[in-house]
Amino acid sequence: MASRTPSAAPTSPRTARSSGRAADRTGAPDGATPDLAAPGGTAAGAPAGKGGERPRRRLSVDERREQLIAVALDLFSRRPPEEVSIDDIAAAAGASRPLVYHYFPGKQALYEESLRRAGRELAGRFEEPADGPLSERLYRVMGRYLDFVQSHGPGFAALLRGGSVAASAGTSAVIDEVRRAAHDQILSHLAVPSPSPGLRLTVRAWIANAEITSLEWLGERSVPLEELQLHLVQEFVAALTLTAAREPALAAELAGFFAAERPAGPAGRLVRELGGLFAVPGIADAVAALAVEPAD
Amino acid sequence: MASRTPSAAPTSPRTARSSGRAADRTGAPDGATPDLAAPGGTAAGAPAGKGGERPRRRLSVDERREQLIAVALDLFSRRPPEEVSIDDIAAAAGASRPLVYHYFPGKQALYEESLRRAGRELAGRFEEPADGPLSERLYRVMGRYLDFVQSHGPGFAALLRGGSVAASAGTSAVIDEVRRAAHDQILSHLAVPSPSPGLRLTVRAWIANAEITSLEWLGERSVPLEELQLHLVQEFVAALTLTAAREPALAAELAGFFAAERPAGPAGRLVRELGGLFAVPGIADAVAALAVEPAD
Repeated sequence: MASRTPSAAPTSPRTARSSGRAADRTGAPDGATPDLAAPGGTAAGAPAGKGGERPRRRLSVDERREQLIAVALDLFSRRPPEEVSIDDIAAAAGASRPLVYHYFPGKQALYEESLRRAGRELAGRFEEPADGPLSERLYRVMGRYLDFVQSHGPGFAALLRGGSVAASAGTSAVIDEVRRAAHDQILSHLAVPSPSPGLRLTVRAWIANAEITSLEWLGERSVPLEELQLHLVQEFVAALTLTAAREPALAAELAGFFAAERPAGPAGRLVRELGGLFAVPGIADAVAALAVEPAD
Repeated sequence: MASRTPSAAPTSPRTARSSGRAADRTGAPDGATPDLAAPGGTAAGAPAGKGGERPRRRLSVDERREQLIAVALDLFSRRPPEEVSIDDIAAAAGASRPLVYHYFPGKQALYEESLRRAGRELAGRFEEPADGPLSERLYRVMGRYLDFVQSHGPGFAALLRGGSVAASAGTSAVIDEVRRAAHDQILSHLAVPSPSPGLRLTVRAWIANAEITSLEWLGERSVPLEELQLHLVQEFVAALTLTAAREPALAAELAGFFAAERPAGPAGRLVRELGGLFAVPGIADAVAALAVEPAD
């Protein structure tokens, strides 16, 4: 994914670009040297703390840019984009408004860039070694995914809910990229020789399920996160099984997946939970009646 | 859902509003009497045909407004919003540009209004009498839903894909309204006394599944529509079953649902398809091994 903002900022403040907005920038010293207000020598990317007078040093251009992105990402994670201003970002970074505009043409560019970073980080969390039972691999991935959702809650919600004032072709591209990464990772773990359209559809639909479920969860937090993690994995196992029931080639692969599963894992727990349903009065009889081929 | 556009248009052309755009309206007689170019006495709402000189009559203000919305909906269904211009709408309606601007301040307003109509129509398709097995009711609903998706394809895709130039708080509200209607209809058919958060989440996640699946289907049409209809219903039955496996109160209801199902219906077919999986070498043994409680 190509970044639209240059990877190195020019060396003088972007006065031409910012002059049009000068009226609402009262209080910020115009033309301030970019790096004076940098916080102490922490790693670029750490949000600036307000306390502690530590010795200051100038951040390099790259460090400053990274710091602004990290601060923006932090703010955009905690609030919807329309509730974050360039002033907020400047304040959190211990920088001036002109300095922020020196690096980014405006809020939308900073939003999209921080989103691209978040998307890249999220996509990285899908990566998982191809070892052990499938449902346990997915369970670990979902743990990292839900941890991301939790720590970037409001921003994640604003992004996926759509209709956000900051939604654009750029933000859509980031979302699509993350979905594609998830899709590709899952298919790589399934390691099915040539995935059918039906299987791809199942994977995509389950990703949509994971998105909407975590989005709803953020609003209500009605179940513990670990439950959500388990349920999503079990829903994947169920969706895969349903697809295999319609596709003989996948059914043969499914046998291999199940053979590698362990009773204590998500798939094992699912099998026993479903088995438990048969003890509920009426269910076993009703299912047995449905198993009979219809007369006509 | 409140409409943002007035239900009756003013009686004189909106010259004040349209004057800013006069430069790109060459060819259209400015200040034309709104109803002169109306097609023959067909029902308001029918797109204007180009042939056949039938006797013309003036459309009433309400008829004309409805006709413009219907024409816009037809165009927005067949092309993404950015590929539909006010000129296209005027031409298809057999009207002038100023006439369209007389009724609507611009393309976005017309887009949102036609979307509201489409949303209302779609929500209406979810309504289904509470008779017969649950899976068969849902199957009928999904038939009507997929018919809508098919006939409004490109517009439906552009809308749900997000990041469209025409996406706005208004379009988001329409989507949310349709989702809520689907959610409420399904819960009313389940008729569970007090639906748990888990069940509500299952319903919402399945709706997301239906959206993404039909969206993907529109792009590839890799399976017949009837298969998609069946699969979606079966996925709902499976998701409901999984939720019931975790919620004893729902499990008791599930027994009732299954007891009312018929072997020839979607649930019956699902039971037999899953039963067929157990004939696949290795699956029955693997599942039996997972059914055993783990040692630790």
